[in-house]
Amino acid sequence: MIETDICIIGTGPVGLFAVFEAGLLKMRCHLIDALPQVGGQLSEIYPHKPIYDIPGYPSINAQELVDNLLLQIAPFHPTYTLGERVETINRQEDKSFIIGTNEDTQVHCKVIVIAGGLGCFEPRKPAIERLEEFEHGKGVAYMVKNPETFRDKEIVLAGGGDSALDWAIFLSNVSKKVTLVHRGETFRGAPDSAEKVFNLAKEGKINLILKANLTKIDGNGTLKKVFYEDALKQMQSIQADYLIPLFGLSPKLGPIANWGLGIEKSQIIVDTTDYATNVEGIYAIGDINTYPGKLKLILCGFHEGAIMMQSAFKHVFPDKHLSFKYTTVNGVHEF
Amino acid sequence: MIETDICIIGTGPVGLFAVFEAGLLKMRCHLIDALPQVGGQLSEIYPHKPIYDIPGYPSINAQELVDNLLLQIAPFHPTYTLGERVETINRQEDKSFIIGTNEDTQVHCKVIVIAGGLGCFEPRKPAIERLEEFEHGKGVAYMVKNPETFRDKEIVLAGGGDSALDWAIFLSNVSKKVTLVHRGETFRGAPDSAEKVFNLAKEGKINLILKANLTKIDGNGTLKKVFYEDALKQMQSIQADYLIPLFGLSPKLGPIANWGLGIEKSQIIVDTTDYATNVEGIYAIGDINTYPGKLKLILCGFHEGAIMMQSAFKHVFPDKHLSFKYTTVNGVHEF
Repeated sequence: MIETDICIIGTGPVGLFAVFEAGLLKMRCHLIDALPQVGGQLSEIYPHKPIYDIPGYPSINAQELVDNLLLQIAPFHPTYTLGERVETINRQEDKSFIIGTNEDTQVHCKVIVIAGGLGCFEPRKPAIERLEEFEHGKGVAYMVKNPETFRDKEIVLAGGGDSALDWAIFLSNVSKKVTLVHRGETFRGAPDSAEKVFNLAKEGKINLILKANLTKIDGNGTLKKVFYEDALKQMQSIQADYLIPLFGLSPKLGPIANWGLGIEKSQIIVDTTDYATNVEGIYAIGDINTYPGKLKLILCGFHEGAIMMQSAFKHVFPDKHLSFKYTTVNGVHEF
Repeated sequence: MIETDICIIGTGPVGLFAVFEAGLLKMRCHLIDALPQVGGQLSEIYPHKPIYDIPGYPSINAQELVDNLLLQIAPFHPTYTLGERVETINRQEDKSFIIGTNEDTQVHCKVIVIAGGLGCFEPRKPAIERLEEFEHGKGVAYMVKNPETFRDKEIVLAGGGDSALDWAIFLSNVSKKVTLVHRGETFRGAPDSAEKVFNLAKEGKINLILKANLTKIDGNGTLKKVFYEDALKQMQSIQADYLIPLFGLSPKLGPIANWGLGIEKSQIIVDTTDYATNVEGIYAIGDINTYPGKLKLILCGFHEGAIMMQSAFKHVFPDKHLSFKYTTVNGVHEF
């Protein structure tokens, strides 16, 4: 059994920064994430994308932000359970909680902070035969975690949104051949990016196939060919080392939906005074919560975590008086 | 008359970042500050101090944060009126405002954002004869704006809080001689800093005078001597190029108090849905506002500015529909 003051579910930027605010108040944190690494969406979906709206950073790559947050919380020695999904929450007689994961890890804590972002999300998969056969490194990927994987390879991207456009542009400089298959003839993504893709197609740097639908894939152990139906309903095929369908993510609250929390449109209702849920001792911060005026911005989640920890303090140290101190004056004292 | 969408009163970090959030929504900002430079307290009071609780920065100097924020908002070309204090706000028939300063600058805007920090604050001055005579570069300073000013000089610091301790420690390596005069024998500042000061005193690097009160100063055009009454009520004097009394700041709301805004303990009451005051079209963000759960942290002010601008949009563009977009997807488009 892991013992901690605060268990944070989710290791995205908001969950990570909450460790810092807890640490200032001498509260220890354990974090759980269903993904195999910390960073949430930033590390999983767009590690190499720049973010422009983190205050004080005119631009910062998603993974760099995660790395900086890890440095910032290092003095407070958070501990992690990664690659496991929280399944159960059981209230104890003393009001503390025991959290259980799908791999039977147990965490005993006084406060639960749900910083689950979009929830347990899964990539939307195209309805193609034999798709699963080539997942897990054998040719089908649902996100670009490291562009180097695709260096000098023949790639087929599918989709019409920003991810498809952005990665087509980026990989056109990295991969041997980039094909972008899209069922429409216009794109949902930023007009600016769409224009770039059309220009790269004219220059022969992207093989752009519009009004086409993926139908099947073929290979022998690893992916070799991607088949599609073209605008004239003819079956065509392309040689490919990788197929990357970028059809978005399907967010799911998962087991959280069954914990008795107030939920509205798949988001957890919180009080803006302290971002507490309707269950005493459970808080929700970041993209997973909702309240009047809510904006799904990372910087808002940072604020929510700071405010929330002041309230959590009374559950962790019911007999102590909280005196608020500025780090500028007092510094950061590790424990 | 200066024409703008939004007039922001206060150019601290929170006021500056609000320009970014306004800019994303294509709203133009003009900023007014009573201080002669942007940055608020950060640039005026502790430019060289590290801040530890800006998310994503394990440590950043106050002035560096201000500089980064200026870079971040540069695409939106904010304009400034510095060194002037807002005195009047007049509502026009079309619900817009005309703001007037003490130097008769006029700004016409649709929305007012008060990001005034502690308000028009002034250093608390000791009750010493001839103090004013040596202000403005002649030997009496109320803050350390640039430590280099004090290199190889004889300095008398006065006070018992963190500023006095921190600057005594810092200047002991810069100045020719540092004397710290304090009326008590223990310090209000961080125990860690107090210990350092006592150790430096033992090593002869700080001349520490406890249980003493400043009584008068002397000089001829510039400061020469500081007089104090020691623990035994004897009058003593020290040769000094500079006297730096660090007795804190006395925050004053100033003319803001007369604008009909809901005020509680010198802070402006706002609604957490959009950080609006009780006067339509006037918002308050950062240290100057108050609401249940309020924390006076820079990162909270960033959040308040982001949320507030969504609400301001309806005053600036009453006929437009606001569609929320992520910068990660859409980038930042300057105007």
